[in-house]
Amino acid sequence: MPPPGTSVIALLTDFGTRDWYAAALKGVILSHAPRAQLVDITHEIPPQDVVAGAFVLASAVEWFPPGTIFVAVVDPGVGSERPLLAARADDRYFIGPDNGLLSWSLERTAASTIVRLTNRRYWRKDVSRTFHGRDIMAPVAAHLARGVRLSRFGTPVERITKLTVPTLQRRERSVEGSILHIDAFGSLITNLPETLLRGKLSSGQVRVRYKDRQARMVSSYGEGQASELIAVVGSLRLIELAIREGSAAWVCNARRGDPVELRW
Amino acid sequence: MPPPGTSVIALLTDFGTRDWYAAALKGVILSHAPRAQLVDITHEIPPQDVVAGAFVLASAVEWFPPGTIFVAVVDPGVGSERPLLAARADDRYFIGPDNGLLSWSLERTAASTIVRLTNRRYWRKDVSRTFHGRDIMAPVAAHLARGVRLSRFGTPVERITKLTVPTLQRRERSVEGSILHIDAFGSLITNLPETLLRGKLSSGQVRVRYKDRQARMVSSYGEGQASELIAVVGSLRLIELAIREGSAAWVCNARRGDPVELRW
Amino acid sequence: MPPPGTSVIALLTDFGTRDWYAAALKGVILSHAPRAQLVDITHEIPPQDVVAGAFVLASAVEWFPPGTIFVAVVDPGVGSERPLLAARADDRYFIGPDNGLLSWSLERTAASTIVRLTNRRYWRKDVSRTFHGRDIMAPVAAHLARGVRLSRFGTPVERITKLTVPTLQRRERSVEGSILHIDAFGSLITNLPETLLRGKLSSGQVRVRYKDRQARMVSSYGEGQASELIAVVGSLRLIELAIREGSAAWVCNARRGDPVELRW
Repeated sequence: MPPPGTSVIALLTDFGTRDWYAAALKGVILSHAPRAQLVDITHEIPPQDVVAGAFVLASAVEWFPPGTIFVAVVDPGVGSERPLLAARADDRYFIGPDNGLLSWSLERTAASTIVRLTNRRYWRKDVSRTFHGRDIMAPVAAHLARGVRLSRFGTPVERITKLTVPTLQRRERSVEGSILHIDAFGSLITNLPETLLRGKLSSGQVRVRYKDRQARMVSSYGEGQASELIAVVGSLRLIELAIREGSAAWVCNARRGDPVELRW
Repeated sequence: MPPPGTSVIALLTDFGTRDWYAAALKGVILSHAPRAQLVDITHEIPPQDVVAGAFVLASAVEWFPPGTIFVAVVDPGVGSERPLLAARADDRYFIGPDNGLLSWSLERTAASTIVRLTNRRYWRKDVSRTFHGRDIMAPVAAHLARGVRLSRFGTPVERITKLTVPTLQRRERSVEGSILHIDAFGSLITNLPETLLRGKLSSGQVRVRYKDRQARMVSSYGEGQASELIAVVGSLRLIELAIREGSAAWVCNARRGDPVELRW
Repeated sequence: MPPPGTSVIALLTDFGTRDWYAAALKGVILSHAPRAQLVDITHEIPPQDVVAGAFVLASAVEWFPPGTIFVAVVDPGVGSERPLLAARADDRYFIGPDNGLLSWSLERTAASTIVRLTNRRYWRKDVSRTFHGRDIMAPVAAHLARGVRLSRFGTPVERITKLTVPTLQRRERSVEGSILHIDAFGSLITNLPETLLRGKLSSGQVRVRYKDRQARMVSSYGEGQASELIAVVGSLRLIELAIREGSAAWVCNARRGDPVELRW
């Protein structure tokens, strides 16, 4: 473990980077924990898109060291009565609103401890109605980095708001999943896990069907032909659709939630 | 105070993040102050928009800890004879061109000490005509972080270039202000301070008029109806106009400087 | 030199900042080198544009302190047999694919030591086919920051993939070069070095011809008239074409590689 106060604090928001909002989070954190190691995951979650935020956060988590504190602010309910949470799971910490944003990250591990933020002692004195990231979540993150125990920030909660995870439809010679996320390269990340391919790849007969296209399963982007839609196991061990040197999202006019079928 | 050399150095520029310009600032700073805590406020001030830079900087300042050094580079006059400044106000430090960029930040406090950068000892040896951020402001920031006193960087100045602050027009049952800033969510931040609302909110009769619309005053974004223009006290304690899950800027075709009226 | 583990690690990629890809690099680096000083050069190299990445990297290098470790990931060949490299040149370190991305940075100095990454001991255990930045380059950078010697990461190589540098055509009263890079301001950076101007500026007869325009040579942006195409020696000591308060790239519909002629 790093010395108290030097923890990694990783930020994910929908604030954009044109204004002072992300900077205000950082300034408040550094006011209390001057040697924290701040990392931006992204501030470009589409405004108020909790599902996109939850996916990007859950995708980032495992690459960070134990002890990392994740502060996630995609918070359309700010100023309402929705609770704020702090949690520990798998030796990492999470702070965010109870609107599903943290749920996929917390479900990754068997056990987690979750509290509802109620102890105003660790908040800014003057809490606005419109910016709880700055006034509550940032100072709580800083105090956590300085060694304050999770249980000090509030009262334990058992149940939090969860996002539904799109399920897989299994058939005799196919599995139907859907698009979870469209990344900045225009790749389409599905919920079809690599494990579905076991024992099937050698046959060479696996295909991924999306809209009226059939994508060939290849092992890296470089094997695709120009403008060919290919399927590849991405860095999250999920099947994704891509076009080498192009955008599958544009070419296919893709939307999150679209069905995708693995056939063999 | 943090140990010498570990200060927070917060950067605001119009350089964008596609090129190496912001990185050059950071590299030069770290060459002289390797343990500085660098924070990006933003590099996406619209090119050469000194007013937007001044507003975002002044909005960010108070959230940062005492001792923070702000380096602000929106500098259409680079290479001309416009002076460069370093200042201390309210235990925070500011470095930037004398074109108004620092003026709203320095006016926030009663007292400030300002010098014109003239001591070339603290500059890069080879100063270009096109990039004083890298060649003068960044090394001065680093030396300041390492403990060099402000007075060493140049000669005191009494008067600096100021930006005009849009004034309020007070009438019997209304106050007219204007839009100061349009943020990345499309919210319209006005110069109408929260203090105007004192004693009026209970009446429920306060309205904010913008173009041909009447916005209802609510206490948080979540109280707005779909597509309703609402008025809310924002995180800067200024009244702002917003549309929940939408962009007031797009819907209203808003421009900075547009008049906005608070009526009761 | 800074203490082991506190090196500056500067990142340049084409990942964008909307997803978790850049964050995954940082998380992996901080897992092994928690006190590294991370700096983003840019994550907005156009996807798979190795030439743009090479130019921005080479432009950034000299402003960073000795000991800096540059991690550059613009890697269309990921998953193929293209080698990965680590190199030392001029007391700075470079990690990236052997596709030309590092070549302009390494050519800046007379001597460099280059190894091909082959020692899997310093990689993540589970190497994907699609994200060698995270699985190989990031952990190698972290181990380098912690003091592991370059020679430990692999076997020496003599020759690497190089990008061609556009050459200058010298004529009696002119030199023809070309556009190397178009920056975010719309300035057109050419390969015509400042040294070509020696002894010519006093005559006032130097002109830069681009398409059917003649640009006047001035010494700073501020000397340009509104909408006038001007030529100036930029911060890299190369001649660039610009329009004050405008975009030369838009006005001239410029493309990288377009010929530009200096005449006297």
